[in-house]
Amino acid sequence: MIRTKKPLVHNITNFVVMNYTANALLACGASPVMAHAPEEVVEMVSLAGALVLNIGTLTPYWVDSMLKAGRRANELNIPIVLDPVGAGATKLRTDSAKEIIDTLSIQVVRGNASEVLSLACEGSRTKGVDAIHSVDEAADAAVSLAMELNTTLAITGKVDLITDGERIYRVSNGHELMGYVTGSGCTATAIIGAFLAVDNDPVEATATGLAYFGLAGEHAAAKASAPGTFQMVLLDALYTMGEEELREGVQISGP
Amino acid sequence: MIRTKKPLVHNITNFVVMNYTANALLACGASPVMAHAPEEVVEMVSLAGALVLNIGTLTPYWVDSMLKAGRRANELNIPIVLDPVGAGATKLRTDSAKEIIDTLSIQVVRGNASEVLSLACEGSRTKGVDAIHSVDEAADAAVSLAMELNTTLAITGKVDLITDGERIYRVSNGHELMGYVTGSGCTATAIIGAFLAVDNDPVEATATGLAYFGLAGEHAAAKASAPGTFQMVLLDALYTMGEEELREGVQISGP
Amino acid sequence: MIRTKKPLVHNITNFVVMNYTANALLACGASPVMAHAPEEVVEMVSLAGALVLNIGTLTPYWVDSMLKAGRRANELNIPIVLDPVGAGATKLRTDSAKEIIDTLSIQVVRGNASEVLSLACEGSRTKGVDAIHSVDEAADAAVSLAMELNTTLAITGKVDLITDGERIYRVSNGHELMGYVTGSGCTATAIIGAFLAVDNDPVEATATGLAYFGLAGEHAAAKASAPGTFQMVLLDALYTMGEEELREGVQISGP
Repeated sequence: MIRTKKPLVHNITNFVVMNYTANALLACGASPVMAHAPEEVVEMVSLAGALVLNIGTLTPYWVDSMLKAGRRANELNIPIVLDPVGAGATKLRTDSAKEIIDTLSIQVVRGNASEVLSLACEGSRTKGVDAIHSVDEAADAAVSLAMELNTTLAITGKVDLITDGERIYRVSNGHELMGYVTGSGCTATAIIGAFLAVDNDPVEATATGLAYFGLAGEHAAAKASAPGTFQMVLLDALYTMGEEELREGVQISGP
Repeated sequence: MIRTKKPLVHNITNFVVMNYTANALLACGASPVMAHAPEEVVEMVSLAGALVLNIGTLTPYWVDSMLKAGRRANELNIPIVLDPVGAGATKLRTDSAKEIIDTLSIQVVRGNASEVLSLACEGSRTKGVDAIHSVDEAADAAVSLAMELNTTLAITGKVDLITDGERIYRVSNGHELMGYVTGSGCTATAIIGAFLAVDNDPVEATATGLAYFGLAGEHAAAKASAPGTFQMVLLDALYTMGEEELREGVQISGP
Repeated sequence: MIRTKKPLVHNITNFVVMNYTANALLACGASPVMAHAPEEVVEMVSLAGALVLNIGTLTPYWVDSMLKAGRRANELNIPIVLDPVGAGATKLRTDSAKEIIDTLSIQVVRGNASEVLSLACEGSRTKGVDAIHSVDEAADAAVSLAMELNTTLAITGKVDLITDGERIYRVSNGHELMGYVTGSGCTATAIIGAFLAVDNDPVEATATGLAYFGLAGEHAAAKASAPGTFQMVLLDALYTMGEEELREGVQISGP
């Protein structure tokens, strides 16, 4: 689907991962563009099939651009995926992520457990990550937060959990070497963006995107056992994976 | 020539490609430097053999630096190559590219057809890319635009076309996997910069640079069939290619 | 040590090397974070085991962030390593590097000979790099400058020289292909940061870090003979190297 439609995916993302993200999107068959100037993001996002907002290496200048691009995306019903990199670690990150979610209609938020759960409002009944002691508690927190924020949440880890507050999917694909590729989480987010551009259901698009990326990681780990080589064959695996191979390899459970 | 002279190539370029561009220039034998602060670009470009201006991930702040560096380069007769990334897609990109061309003496502009042809003035007789329906029309448009802008144009694609308005060269080297490496166009531009630093004829330097890069792509494709591995063996191929191998492999026609 | 403690290494570094640096730190077992906004660096560095300041692609905005982060690091006794990229080449770089050294307590400075020796004060008795004609003169200059600046200096090259003004170590590990990987010097600096986070002695930490990185380069060169492939197997080598392999392979002499 991505390979036939070649959707333009507009990324306002961090400096560390721009190159790898762009290469991953190309390998998926999408067409990446990186643009962050407030003078052009409104125009650029209008051409896109999805908008990816990523708050790594953040400054307030970039938040303004994200809000500008996001407002226009909302007007045009272009789906948005947010990666709250480092939310919970600093006030700038947490506050910016919350401002983006409060201001815009965000279709999907992807992060690790502490990033995602840091987005709960003060006084929310959602437990913070430190108060969670089991997989079931994490799922409960995600469901309640998805309803509170009115979006689809993807908490990625050994098993990825995706929920819109009603349905819950779990994706078991992936490989531990992915944790040694900087920005592999950011890449997952961008890939979700590509899937959102061709699939109207955020929960389905996110689960499929994460399973595809995780499966590519498994294929890459069969060819490389250390992270330098691995990161390159991971791009190869994204590029070469056929639809049937994907269908057979994905490990999605639920809802 | 590049390997013996090791020219310093000063790049004011976009965030996505900085790393890959620098590695490609090193593999060619050149010495890359990236510097964009208005406080230092004048000094930095004075040390360089060529200046590469690339408007990806642009903001107005960067345009100012490009103009500052470019004015000094012009005073010192240091050649400049411009990559109008995304010109035609947003007003910021189109206007900035035109301002750079109007303000500075630019030796070479390299882009794809829509980027390059978007640089025609309002009321120009040069056809826009949407009005072009054949290879011959594209060549005519390029020739007339090169004369209008008083520069050498390189329109890259399946076959690259290089013209200063009088001579026309065509370069047939290259491989489709290069389109899956983000910034491969930007890399071509930087390599042209390295060739300009050691060759006074912009048309010759550009044709040779593009043939060299395209031939490296062919060599890389003989070793790798997917884009992750390919992008690394492409750097290898730039590094290992000998002069004789280059002479035998280039496919340049004209003028 | 790094692999068991997994120290967070906070980098305020240049755009060219952010991705590769982060991947190298992950391969070492450290946990990298890149953050430069003045609004968050004080908070971020408080979580870190070491702070890496690198002045490539510098602007004054970034210097302010470096000073802010550095002051907080000093208060918390978090070690700082400085990479004065391009000091000596432009006034902005030289002045910024000096301001950072004058304002902060810096544990280690790593650069090539001209970068490091450009940090001597006006009227210093330390010879500039152009006045140095032998290895012995370089060592003398480094010793006197280390005392003048009250820090540990690492001048890297074919043989790396590390001194705090009293002890002198020399590290002979490394491979010439490392010079074809952009930011390999910046990577060395970041790795020193990771070692500083787990070792209180700056001279020992620096010598060990440089020997480890150089040895990884030797291992990588046994597997790859050109720079594209080399840069990836270099990450592999950082990741796979065992403690015994390191102990047997390091070539450190002195004091």
